[in-house]
Amino acid sequence: MHGYMNDEALKKTIETKEAHYWSRARKSIWRKGQISGFRQIVKKIKIDDDQDAIWLSVDIGNGASCHVGYRSCFYRSIPLGKIRNTEDLEIKFEEKKKIFDPKKIYKDEPNPTKL
Amino acid sequence: MHGYMNDEALKKTIETKEAHYWSRARKSIWRKGQISGFRQIVKKIKIDDDQDAIWLSVDIGNGASCHVGYRSCFYRSIPLGKIRNTEDLEIKFEEKKKIFDPKKIYKDEPNPTKL
Repeated sequence: MHGYMNDEALKKTIETKEAHYWSRARKSIWRKGQISGFRQIVKKIKIDDDQDAIWLSVDIGNGASCHVGYRSCFYRSIPLGKIRNTEDLEIKFEEKKKIFDPKKIYKDEPNPTKL
Repeated sequence: MHGYMNDEALKKTIETKEAHYWSRARKSIWRKGQISGFRQIVKKIKIDDDQDAIWLSVDIGNGASCHVGYRSCFYRSIPLGKIRNTEDLEIKFEEKKKIFDPKKIYKDEPNPTKL
């Protein structure tokens, strides 16, 4: 997944070893899994050269990271090569099956992912 | 590495199978490696659920992606656990050796990474 952090989210992530993000939609700190139960246990944090990007290696067990229900948010790939017509571009599903049903997990909570 | 794309950069990446980005500093399309020679040959492109993030799997051979000279921009890790004093936080180098010397490679070109 790709998400955003502010300094508080990064500090909580480092200290608790559970991934925290900054929800730009809700304007609040968001502990991953606080509603769904799908926590991310942090194994390693790397930081890039100019220190504005963080790479997390996390353990999600048999869970999922994607609000749509897939294990990864990156559950689809784009075919490479000449694009004849953008409308005809066929995105391929790399994951065939959802891990959970978002309607059952999020219930009346608004799904933060707008498709 | 982490970078930005616009629609033209994504299209060029898909069609040429070489990673192109949008340089926010130079406000122009940037073919990775156009100065350094360190190209990224794209093996796979994945797109996330709400289609605002792209994950690239690339072949960089024996080259490097980081403007500082390391193979990865994420050449350092942050130790996990309670932070007693932010000033004392010791960032650990995960890569011991640079792949190239940025001064030799970029010469008079301004290094796009400001540390």
